[in-house]
Amino acid sequence: MTTVAYLGPPGTFNDAALQRLRTDARTAPLFGGAHTDAVPAVTPDEALAMVRAGTVDYACVPFENSVDGTINPTSDTLAVGSRLQIFAETELDVVFSILVRPGTTAEDVKVLRTHPVAAAQVRRWVGENLPNARIETTSSTAAGAQEVAGGSADATAAPARAGEINGLVPLAENVADVGGARTRFVLVGRPAPPTPRTGRDRTCVIFGLPHQPNSLVQALTELSIRDIDLTRIGSRPTRVERFTYLFHVDLVGHIDDPVVAEALVALRHRTEDLRYLGSWPVADGEEAGSPPPDHADEKAWLEGLRRGDDV
Amino acid sequence: MTTVAYLGPPGTFNDAALQRLRTDARTAPLFGGAHTDAVPAVTPDEALAMVRAGTVDYACVPFENSVDGTINPTSDTLAVGSRLQIFAETELDVVFSILVRPGTTAEDVKVLRTHPVAAAQVRRWVGENLPNARIETTSSTAAGAQEVAGGSADATAAPARAGEINGLVPLAENVADVGGARTRFVLVGRPAPPTPRTGRDRTCVIFGLPHQPNSLVQALTELSIRDIDLTRIGSRPTRVERFTYLFHVDLVGHIDDPVVAEALVALRHRTEDLRYLGSWPVADGEEAGSPPPDHADEKAWLEGLRRGDDV
Repeated sequence: MTTVAYLGPPGTFNDAALQRLRTDARTAPLFGGAHTDAVPAVTPDEALAMVRAGTVDYACVPFENSVDGTINPTSDTLAVGSRLQIFAETELDVVFSILVRPGTTAEDVKVLRTHPVAAAQVRRWVGENLPNARIETTSSTAAGAQEVAGGSADATAAPARAGEINGLVPLAENVADVGGARTRFVLVGRPAPPTPRTGRDRTCVIFGLPHQPNSLVQALTELSIRDIDLTRIGSRPTRVERFTYLFHVDLVGHIDDPVVAEALVALRHRTEDLRYLGSWPVADGEEAGSPPPDHADEKAWLEGLRRGDDV
Repeated sequence: MTTVAYLGPPGTFNDAALQRLRTDARTAPLFGGAHTDAVPAVTPDEALAMVRAGTVDYACVPFENSVDGTINPTSDTLAVGSRLQIFAETELDVVFSILVRPGTTAEDVKVLRTHPVAAAQVRRWVGENLPNARIETTSSTAAGAQEVAGGSADATAAPARAGEINGLVPLAENVADVGGARTRFVLVGRPAPPTPRTGRDRTCVIFGLPHQPNSLVQALTELSIRDIDLTRIGSRPTRVERFTYLFHVDLVGHIDDPVVAEALVALRHRTEDLRYLGSWPVADGEEAGSPPPDHADEKAWLEGLRRGDDV
């Protein structure tokens, strides 16, 4: 049996993301095919701590949102402590139902309580449509739904399924201040061989930089001179020294792409405390970026020259 | 009279930052010396909208925190809409008092309500010291103090002064999960000539990038080949196209440093929609980074060559 921590309770976007990873033909093998035990956690931190402690095999946690950016509690936790590794990703469209107890009107809503990321994405709609509402935050969208059912809040912004589970009705559906928002979720485990190269893969690293001018450009040039595409870069405070940063970089390719392997070695020399967070297939439907150049025959060519072959 | 919007109500860190900018000999001249009218706002967005609308002269808003990173609501609002400009910065140590109504014990605290950034910085302390507390968020630390005074929350994490203003007493003082945290606040107005170059200045730009591999490295190389130090880089979703980014870059130097001016022109050609957010003096006591090289006599040298001087 495979055990997976996720941001519960049942009915969260994270719950839906985990279902998709379990059923998608490309990622299902990671779960061993047998029964999966989904263990609710309250924060990405808690879910990842369960993986580190060995009480679960994986954590499924939000990684990035197309409107609100990198999910800092996830990336900050991945950046320090024992190394964890990402094995898969999936993406979900983010649209919210505004859920209330039956009989509640728009004017009745004094407190709308939901997850902070959800709050950021319905703020304008709430301002325009719920004249008496203040927005409060809680640990998850489904927790917000439970709190509405329990009467401590009047409304939540959550997936429709959280309403079905908690006996709430939608005051509005498909609400999102910015259309087309998606959240990328990742499946995180303890270090292990990455899933095989597919040709449409992503590799993630985190690193610090020496106190030298231009050290960031020097590091990133190790990617650019090898024609390796960079799809995300973020900086987060180290929390050790004031206004110093750890850089989080997603690049296109797999550790088994020879140029990517070469770039990882070069990056390790240019940076401090380089941490490899894994290589995994890009989610279906998502643009992968330009694939890394294929220098796989380079070694044979070099060996030929060493043998004295006339190549 | 100068009018300045800030995150109120009175007693917030933002209030303290504004007092410091008004009284510091280096930044006081921006306020014209006469009476300053401080106008409380609820979010950075609202404060900056008042500047854009012309109802205030400046907004004083949080820009970056050494533990939690860039303040996204500020930088996202600066990135779009009519151009705004930063004229000054100041930094404050961030330590919290846990404020309660007189007679409240640690066990009595069911709800601690404070600003989200404050919440992130006292979470561990609350977990260890307030056994029955859940953390909720509100618009400001001082609003949290008002809500405690009003009875809708039991405790807040706020500056000590917010307790004095609202008749609360400290359950604990100097609370911070990570020691040495600081927040940088900036003074933002409508476009105008920047304050004069001091030799210890910061310049901020925001830009998008063309869809080409390595466009980020090419852009940053315009700084590195000119020996211009980069002190902060962040990426934020454009919110227009999924998983595309705007880059926020702070560099060392002033638009009146010739190499910085040259780099801004070069960056403009390498990037899309480059937005200049100003050049201003680095806060006292803060490390400025390596100053840009002084190529001020370059123009005279070039003109000499054009005249046919034997130089």
